[in-house]
Amino acid sequence: MIPMHMKKRVEIVVEAPALHRLLDRLDRAGVTGYTVVAGLAGRGHDGAWDSSGLAGEAGRMMLVICILDEARLGAVIEGVYDVVSRQIGIVAVSDVFVVRADHF
Amino acid sequence: MIPMHMKKRVEIVVEAPALHRLLDRLDRAGVTGYTVVAGLAGRGHDGAWDSSGLAGEAGRMMLVICILDEARLGAVIEGVYDVVSRQIGIVAVSDVFVVRADHF
Amino acid sequence: MIPMHMKKRVEIVVEAPALHRLLDRLDRAGVTGYTVVAGLAGRGHDGAWDSSGLAGEAGRMMLVICILDEARLGAVIEGVYDVVSRQIGIVAVSDVFVVRADHF
Repeated sequence: MIPMHMKKRVEIVVEAPALHRLLDRLDRAGVTGYTVVAGLAGRGHDGAWDSSGLAGEAGRMMLVICILDEARLGAVIEGVYDVVSRQIGIVAVSDVFVVRADHF
Repeated sequence: MIPMHMKKRVEIVVEAPALHRLLDRLDRAGVTGYTVVAGLAGRGHDGAWDSSGLAGEAGRMMLVICILDEARLGAVIEGVYDVVSRQIGIVAVSDVFVVRADHF
Repeated sequence: MIPMHMKKRVEIVVEAPALHRLLDRLDRAGVTGYTVVAGLAGRGHDGAWDSSGLAGEAGRMMLVICILDEARLGAVIEGVYDVVSRQIGIVAVSDVFVVRADHF
């Protein structure tokens, strides 16, 4: 069996207009990789939304997934929280095992 | 370090025509937020599908992610299972840590 | 409460041109279901990319999620790693609980 290494998976849901700022924070916190997925619809503290955009781009949410070493978690959470706390957004952290430890 | 709180992440894969019914069950079970992502392609017990839709909208799958307090998990799973058990679908629950406990 | 069963959730991020090969490996390793989601943008070891595709299809990443029994994990990881190790890609494994054990 290929050896696996424990890392942290950070999943962030953020309003589309804040995405660029969020990714900038990830970069500054030393995150080497992330994937962005567009939300189609959703519901949060500000009510329901969908990508057809009655509320415009502002209401659309983006899902950002990144995997990082636990050593970076504190800095990443603080950077992300700084963006997300001023808006609608979620930050959820879980344990994952990856095959290539050197990538994170 | 910002304090974090353990919650449950529920990930549901459901056929597009059942999405509205599923979201209604989440609402009724007290889920305050969720994000819907459109599947591009996939494979399940009913065979392979893709979003170009040879099988039409019925074959398309949606991914719904929500984070909730463990206290609500039983009610949510029952509501969701009620929708998913009659169709193709998956419900997977995992532990996550979030920064804003009051949101869930 | 509906009984739940522990399974493994495997999340793979892979370049679009390698998707077909990856899904073929999942099939051969006995994976009965997966969902593919298109990445909108991201950053990896090869730099940043987005779906508007300056780098063309080659640069676009796909997210593949599958849930499987732990008994299959070794074979799946080996098949997936064989595809991903030659390219940009991530394989992350976590624990999940599902309601329908017979599906995986």
